Amino acid sequence: MQEIERKFLILDTSDFRKEAFRETRIVQGYLNSAAERTVRVRIRGEQGFLTIKGKSSSDGLSRFEWEREIRISEAEALLKLCEPGVIEKLRYEIRYENHIFEADEFCGDNEGLLLAEVELQHKDEEFAKPDWLGEEVTGNLKYYNSYLSKFPFKEWQNHNP
Amino acid sequence: MQEIERKFLILDTSDFRKEAFRETRIVQGYLNSAAERTVRVRIRGEQGFLTIKGKSSSDGLSRFEWEREIRISEAEALLKLCEPGVIEKLRYEIRYENHIFEADEFCGDNEGLLLAEVELQHKDEEFAKPDWLGEEVTGNLKYYNSYLSKFPFKEWQNHNP
Repeated sequence: MQEIERKFLILDTSDFRKEAFRETRIVQGYLNSAAERTVRVRIRGEQGFLTIKGKSSSDGLSRFEWEREIRISEAEALLKLCEPGVIEKLRYEIRYENHIFEADEFCGDNEGLLLAEVELQHKDEEFAKPDWLGEEVTGNLKYYNSYLSKFPFKEWQNHNP
Repeated sequence: MQEIERKFLILDTSDFRKEAFRETRIVQGYLNSAAERTVRVRIRGEQGFLTIKGKSSSDGLSRFEWEREIRISEAEALLKLCEPGVIEKLRYEIRYENHIFEADEFCGDNEGLLLAEVELQHKDEEFAKPDWLGEEVTGNLKYYNSYLSKFPFKEWQNHNP
């Protein structure tokens, strides 16, 4: 299926966390981090997932996505096969008017990075923006998690891509 | 789980095909063809599979393998994301004494290649060898299907790896 998403930085002076109706820990790695055929292994809370994504459309908005839930023991075994550069983050799910925003606070080598995504049904769907939403970075490859696994945020100060 | 297999060339003068109790067409591609973390999409007859394999053990005999059946429509969609170099082959399943041999006759860019595999329960398990079984190539990377997808058999005459 095709996934349509828009991605934004989060203003780090904001207190977006207290608006969350759910908070989950995510650990994920990549069996392939190439943007043309990303294969991701994820543990989200007590669930495991295997997700395959294709190349983004030219506007960066949509992308083929296939996902299957797997047992957490399988996800743990598959994480051991992944490329170096596992990503850890806390995900806050926030309802704002008619949409759910997923706000990610990264840990480890990506500490300091805050990213929010909203999934849309159509490319031109309107949505209300909470006041903690910053610059839009949809389609910017350096904010892809697969990119962050290879070039983590903490290294951007020295070598901004 | 850990998969233990031994792999052999097939003597191409033999008539191994007539011993098969089943013959199936296989089309497969790779979302990652690296030997450390192979991600394979396969259509076998009317079934789809997603298979993830780890690096082989130092003796080339065993390898972590995770496999899940997926819908054929999903497999078709995922095949479109794969790296160039889809593999097509006919698989003959042949019972010989206490073991099942999978004999693969490759098509397309790998035409002329005949490989047989037998799966074992233990590394030192004995098995009877049918007379069409040739040289053992267990652990030889150039006979991995993931390798063949990049360096097909037809090109070996010009550039033997």
